[in-house]
Amino acid sequence: MNIVVSLPAADKTEWWCQMLRDLMPDWNVYPIDKVPDPDAVTYSVLWRPATGAMKPFRNLKAIVSLGAGIDHVLADEQLPLHVPIIRTVGTDLTQRMKEYVALHVLRHHRELPAIQANQARQLWEQIVVPPATQRRVGVMGLGNLGAAAAELLKQIGFEVRGWSRSAKDLPGIQCYSGAEGFGAFLEGTEILVCLLPLTESTRGILNADTFNRLKRGASIVNAARGPHLVDSDLVEALNSGQISSATLDVFHVEPLPASHPFWLNPKITITPHVASLIDAPTGSKIVAKNIRTFQETGTVTDLADAKRGY
Amino acid sequence: MNIVVSLPAADKTEWWCQMLRDLMPDWNVYPIDKVPDPDAVTYSVLWRPATGAMKPFRNLKAIVSLGAGIDHVLADEQLPLHVPIIRTVGTDLTQRMKEYVALHVLRHHRELPAIQANQARQLWEQIVVPPATQRRVGVMGLGNLGAAAAELLKQIGFEVRGWSRSAKDLPGIQCYSGAEGFGAFLEGTEILVCLLPLTESTRGILNADTFNRLKRGASIVNAARGPHLVDSDLVEALNSGQISSATLDVFHVEPLPASHPFWLNPKITITPHVASLIDAPTGSKIVAKNIRTFQETGTVTDLADAKRGY
Repeated sequence: MNIVVSLPAADKTEWWCQMLRDLMPDWNVYPIDKVPDPDAVTYSVLWRPATGAMKPFRNLKAIVSLGAGIDHVLADEQLPLHVPIIRTVGTDLTQRMKEYVALHVLRHHRELPAIQANQARQLWEQIVVPPATQRRVGVMGLGNLGAAAAELLKQIGFEVRGWSRSAKDLPGIQCYSGAEGFGAFLEGTEILVCLLPLTESTRGILNADTFNRLKRGASIVNAARGPHLVDSDLVEALNSGQISSATLDVFHVEPLPASHPFWLNPKITITPHVASLIDAPTGSKIVAKNIRTFQETGTVTDLADAKRGY
Repeated sequence: MNIVVSLPAADKTEWWCQMLRDLMPDWNVYPIDKVPDPDAVTYSVLWRPATGAMKPFRNLKAIVSLGAGIDHVLADEQLPLHVPIIRTVGTDLTQRMKEYVALHVLRHHRELPAIQANQARQLWEQIVVPPATQRRVGVMGLGNLGAAAAELLKQIGFEVRGWSRSAKDLPGIQCYSGAEGFGAFLEGTEILVCLLPLTESTRGILNADTFNRLKRGASIVNAARGPHLVDSDLVEALNSGQISSATLDVFHVEPLPASHPFWLNPKITITPHVASLIDAPTGSKIVAKNIRTFQETGTVTDLADAKRGY
């Protein structure tokens, strides 16, 4: 029973291999460049695999995505699409994401960027904001992560709305769905959080048209994927004042190139894809458990749908 | 039935007078410098009154403090101490305070100051922090505000401890009390939040000895009163690395003088006493209700204890 591991960085690949070996001593775990017999490999563990990287492995039973999203796996146009894809999610990932969303929504709500700009000028100026109970926050995407984030925002006190492809029902949260519900969802929203999966229908969804439907001066938090955002539309909306501030954790190209204009835009806060990190000690336990369960039962709870895209 | 209003700023005094007149048309409401007959005044509404300002009003039934704390009223050494003091608290105040505490605790927890310093240098560097479930937060003061803040921190996922003068029992929160419980409360605490009332026994409680009992590299959030903190001890602890960062909303002198070294210390975040603002529209409703209730029944729920100091 052989597993192949492939991450863009060789040291991280080795780190994951070691963690999995410790947890699965009855399995052989190889980094992708050191597999003795590709036909003996039945599982692959991947983050952003190279194009065609899975082609040599003809006997894969399942592919494990090292994240909640599978877009980085599907980006390989030569991926064997008949192989089931297992998402890696868990309480730790959900916990980290909801913390991130709460932090950045609160930061925009309480106008902390303006307060900190005042500190740099040694200026004492009280900015009065309404309580969260009078602030409307919209969460796009109501999967494991989006639902947990929306629930915490509700507990903090915000007026929370949610939007998803298919209709959902979450207690205390006004839910909208589909293209027909999108306009109503955006109307009056002051802080918009994107936690959508990246699919052909969500690519570029954070665009000028979306921004223009929000309340003037709204804020954006994107903790999903870089291609959800039309970069130039955001810069324009920030310049016009339609959007007052944005926090971005994800980008079209990561690491964000040093030359990208986002870096020095005072209205943009950049975090380096840390909203919901999988660390190897925690993540490897989830991965090991999913592989064992799939091997024994032929399925797992967190199976993705390659056709749907998440 | 006459009310006198006194705030340090004349325009704010006038603002509060107008709000109270609108809500209490059967009462006369005067700014302190325009009272026709001091003997006819039975209630005073105060924020940081001048020394001796209450002496002319010999028939006061109650003094209303425009805040949860009463230290700013007791600071007047000529205050008639036999007059009951009504605190102004309410769901809005509690809501604002718990938002503030959640924001700043999360900010330190997720090392956002370091991430933002990296952005300024266009540096993409993932900082891995544990989930909140592995982060110990200590809340000092478990009154209305402290208990609400502790509860929200618990909902976010933190391991929360509380400390208060007298023993409290809050679900899911490890509570400590009194001088004898203080050391155990501090041990291992990584983020310390101060929401204590200012009394002779809590003045200067955020000092070198307290800092040294926390986990090395801990963070401080003070949203109570400036004199809880020994300023020079904080600067020293930040220099030594015992404390890694601090957020301060309150100061010995407010507004914080432009010459104060806190302003430009990169490890200190300054907010201009906005953690839990009472805005006149919301606050005046609470004040009016409390005055009416006291007038009718001779007491209110939010009566302070001048001897205890809060």
